[in-house]
Amino acid sequence: MRASRYLIATQKETPADAEIISHQLMLRAGMIRKLAAGLYTWLPMGLRSLRKVERIVREEMDKSGAQEVLMPAVQPAELWQESGRWTEYGGELLRMNDRHGRDFCFGPTHEEVITDLIRNEVKSYKELPANFYQIQTKFRDERRPRFGVMRAREFIMKDAYSFHVDAESLNETYQVMHRTYCNIFDRVGLDYRPVEADSGAIGGSDSHEFHVLASSGEDDIVFSTESDYAANIEKAVALAPAGERPAPAEEMKEVHTPGQRTIEAIAEFLGIDATRTVKTLLVKGEEDENGQSGLVALILRGDHTLNEIKAENLAGIAEPLTMATDEEIKSATGCEPGSIGPVNLPVPVIVDRSAAHLADFVCGANRDDYHLTGVNWERDVPLGRVEDLRNVVEGDPSPDGKGTLEIRRGIEVGHIFKLGNKYSKSMNATVLDEHGKSVVMEMGCYGVGVSRIVAASIEQNHDDKGIIWPDAIAPFQVAIVTLNAHKSPTVAEAGEKLYEQLRQAGFDVLLDDRNERPGVKFADMELIGIPHRFVVSDRGLAAGTLEYKGRRDEEKQDIPVAEALPFLINASPRKGL
Amino acid sequence: MRASRYLIATQKETPADAEIISHQLMLRAGMIRKLAAGLYTWLPMGLRSLRKVERIVREEMDKSGAQEVLMPAVQPAELWQESGRWTEYGGELLRMNDRHGRDFCFGPTHEEVITDLIRNEVKSYKELPANFYQIQTKFRDERRPRFGVMRAREFIMKDAYSFHVDAESLNETYQVMHRTYCNIFDRVGLDYRPVEADSGAIGGSDSHEFHVLASSGEDDIVFSTESDYAANIEKAVALAPAGERPAPAEEMKEVHTPGQRTIEAIAEFLGIDATRTVKTLLVKGEEDENGQSGLVALILRGDHTLNEIKAENLAGIAEPLTMATDEEIKSATGCEPGSIGPVNLPVPVIVDRSAAHLADFVCGANRDDYHLTGVNWERDVPLGRVEDLRNVVEGDPSPDGKGTLEIRRGIEVGHIFKLGNKYSKSMNATVLDEHGKSVVMEMGCYGVGVSRIVAASIEQNHDDKGIIWPDAIAPFQVAIVTLNAHKSPTVAEAGEKLYEQLRQAGFDVLLDDRNERPGVKFADMELIGIPHRFVVSDRGLAAGTLEYKGRRDEEKQDIPVAEALPFLINASPRKGL
Repeated sequence: MRASRYLIATQKETPADAEIISHQLMLRAGMIRKLAAGLYTWLPMGLRSLRKVERIVREEMDKSGAQEVLMPAVQPAELWQESGRWTEYGGELLRMNDRHGRDFCFGPTHEEVITDLIRNEVKSYKELPANFYQIQTKFRDERRPRFGVMRAREFIMKDAYSFHVDAESLNETYQVMHRTYCNIFDRVGLDYRPVEADSGAIGGSDSHEFHVLASSGEDDIVFSTESDYAANIEKAVALAPAGERPAPAEEMKEVHTPGQRTIEAIAEFLGIDATRTVKTLLVKGEEDENGQSGLVALILRGDHTLNEIKAENLAGIAEPLTMATDEEIKSATGCEPGSIGPVNLPVPVIVDRSAAHLADFVCGANRDDYHLTGVNWERDVPLGRVEDLRNVVEGDPSPDGKGTLEIRRGIEVGHIFKLGNKYSKSMNATVLDEHGKSVVMEMGCYGVGVSRIVAASIEQNHDDKGIIWPDAIAPFQVAIVTLNAHKSPTVAEAGEKLYEQLRQAGFDVLLDDRNERPGVKFADMELIGIPHRFVVSDRGLAAGTLEYKGRRDEEKQDIPVAEALPFLINASPRKGL
Repeated sequence: MRASRYLIATQKETPADAEIISHQLMLRAGMIRKLAAGLYTWLPMGLRSLRKVERIVREEMDKSGAQEVLMPAVQPAELWQESGRWTEYGGELLRMNDRHGRDFCFGPTHEEVITDLIRNEVKSYKELPANFYQIQTKFRDERRPRFGVMRAREFIMKDAYSFHVDAESLNETYQVMHRTYCNIFDRVGLDYRPVEADSGAIGGSDSHEFHVLASSGEDDIVFSTESDYAANIEKAVALAPAGERPAPAEEMKEVHTPGQRTIEAIAEFLGIDATRTVKTLLVKGEEDENGQSGLVALILRGDHTLNEIKAENLAGIAEPLTMATDEEIKSATGCEPGSIGPVNLPVPVIVDRSAAHLADFVCGANRDDYHLTGVNWERDVPLGRVEDLRNVVEGDPSPDGKGTLEIRRGIEVGHIFKLGNKYSKSMNATVLDEHGKSVVMEMGCYGVGVSRIVAASIEQNHDDKGIIWPDAIAPFQVAIVTLNAHKSPTVAEAGEKLYEQLRQAGFDVLLDDRNERPGVKFADMELIGIPHRFVVSDRGLAAGTLEYKGRRDEEKQDIPVAEALPFLINASPRKGL
């Protein structure tokens, strides 16, 4: 491509409303432009990277044996009503009426559509397993779209759905997809980790997320220092402390704690560590048959935080997790939220594993401005139900027994789920098994955030000059910058010759033939992040050389003109592709 | 691809609700499935053809120098309000509200979005001309979606928009796009015609449509028998008959014509040809400044039909064209619609060129159940405004003076427009010209119905056994059908070997390794329409041969195993691609 005939829409200023580096650089490098909140146009430069990601995803999915389809973006409400999600999905589902007043949505995902298709098309176990994918525009009406294409409302996703006669077959395909995702992210050139994840609102059992490690990530990812254990903090298991619970050593006493309503305040007031306190959180319980629900108390060690996902996955607790209001707390316990504790609490209690391990602890006395000290489980208050309720913290033991946990930030770029029969059951998607018996199919689903990968790659690969693309998804692999070409036919000719030579060898080349100052051209090529750069100048040509600089290199080097192609083939991991 | 691991979703029965052959065959061959009215899922087999069309379009657009972008499908109302189309566009625009209640639409086209982008990005004539395209999912909420993907609500379109500093530059790019479209449709393998077209609601001046000739087409396309003249009937010029208007020979007389209200009835009643009558149609005139509009009379020769597009493009006539109601006619003329005529008619009259050439004609007397005979222009009634009002008919002279016109049916698969400044003016999209003066850009726009091409190709290429794909867009170019492979390892092995050999030579091959009867496999491959078929059988292998049959061939032929690849390369226009 010749830059003089291409939209090079670079900007010097950092856009004010772009919070994270990938968003800033994608705007500055002229890859995207905002149309409205969460809606972006991909400019030519950005689209080239997007298409390369798309191509890698497609090739690896094809290799895995998955079959590409294309389902409509606009979906009829009836299918969502059948699965129950028309009411469940909430505000992120963009709903609309057609000219006849019928209900539709812009699909944020396609479980219903594919399940409907496959229940009609596939009749026998002989046609299974089958895995169908599409690369398609989705819409999620995020309440607060942000970070450019990282959390846009309209985005491109690869979604795949597999169908099976039994759980064993699902498991096999799940493993194939796990490997396929590793292949995809390896090829794209990302530093990523597959981690255990909660399967969330989409339903089902096993689930792994694939995270790109980056400080701007919105997820906390937990790793073992000594094993392969890795999980989203939503899912990471918090073990009970080792050993037996210590025996009681103190008497239980009621202490006047006027105005002390937080763990920090109480600990300071009493001169103890927060680890010796417990906090009591009241949440709504599950509705009974009559639609009534009471409150449930969750007890955590004072320094720990509630893991809402773990809590809402427990039996007896309303989903989504709903904290009790101050009024509800007062009406159930007779006192203010800051003074609640498990002793003689008139609501059911669930105790976190770490809180259950405490002896001689401090808690609210269920009486305004009073706390209890020296409290012990069983002696002073029965220890009933114990569960894993909290988020892990750095230094916690790894749940596989090997090493301790550390926490880093991650950007989710892939997610694989075992859906089981969540959709196939509600939508009655059955096949005949080998005995001629009708069985509900098992399903898996597998997503890749295609447009998000572009941004995530930038979060991981940039410097103060701009983007640094991995070769595989760079908009162009090589930039040829000609200096003063409009005055020097020699330079212009040598630039064209090199351009043709590298193109014919299969490289994606941008010939920067613009009539701009060298500084402008260098800055643009660095901002855009093209991995390899050759400079063609009169001075160099006089010595029979070109100047080469890799995007990550500190130093330039002179390469004999005739050596340019072999040098590049050697320097690029995408050798002459 | 191995058929045993692929969704071969063929059907024997012709679906009841599919009216045209491409819709029937796409369903029967397992290319598409209906999700809801006008919404179709592309199954793996159909998507392969769609992607091949897409690829040809992309390659030819890239070759033309156009730059690919990707704009959001969901567009904010503000831009459409700026161009005026938010109110103008009507029921085909699928409107929606996001969670904050803001107005959006699912883009049926992207003039507003691209104009907004370019007015922000391009500042100087030096950056022009520039042409941007995308291949994208569009939505038009058709009142009556039908014919499968031919007239679906959600469909895939290539839309391109060019920007220019002046009309001359627009003209150049328009010509480049005309050639590019010919290249695209040539490569796809369609029998098509570029024809002059009305530019319609999208606005602008020059316009050409590209039509695939097929009897199921929804447009009438007009050709000269002796020149390159071709036009949509909407646009085709109807010339006045040659020579002077004959001199009056009869006296004007009023005749009692009780109950004779149609041209046919009057002609029969009077024993004359319909060509000697005129019909008078009353339509609404343009609104004046006070919002008032009267009626206008359009006079046509009795055997001719009104061309509504031509009429509504005329000054003084309301757009869209609106016929007067019976009440309005009665109130304006004092008589019933069947007895209206130009003589002493109290509304302005526009006369078609052919009607203006008549002498001694018959028309309504503006008195119920009476007609006038022997009427002559100027003598009996002034001949004021004469315009081209009618549809051409077969045998009319070609407007370029060469030959006569014939009419065939066409399916529109491409459309190119000179938009001029329709959008750039209302949206204030300017650049600085070479004198530093701000000028409104000239624009062109260029559409290809990517998904429609697949259906149009089938309309042109099929027989009673199924689809006949052109090689370029066949889902697979070659089918290898193995007979009894599950019992004969020799056949299975020879099939695999041929499969690998042809694949490595670059052919898209479907190996039909299904454990099905030969008849089922042959019928499926013919229904799906794969251009080349090899059969591998024990009997053939014993003689060292494979059986070959081209999809259009009457006869099979035996080919020595070693000759299969060179034979295929010779038989396929996509030689070893």
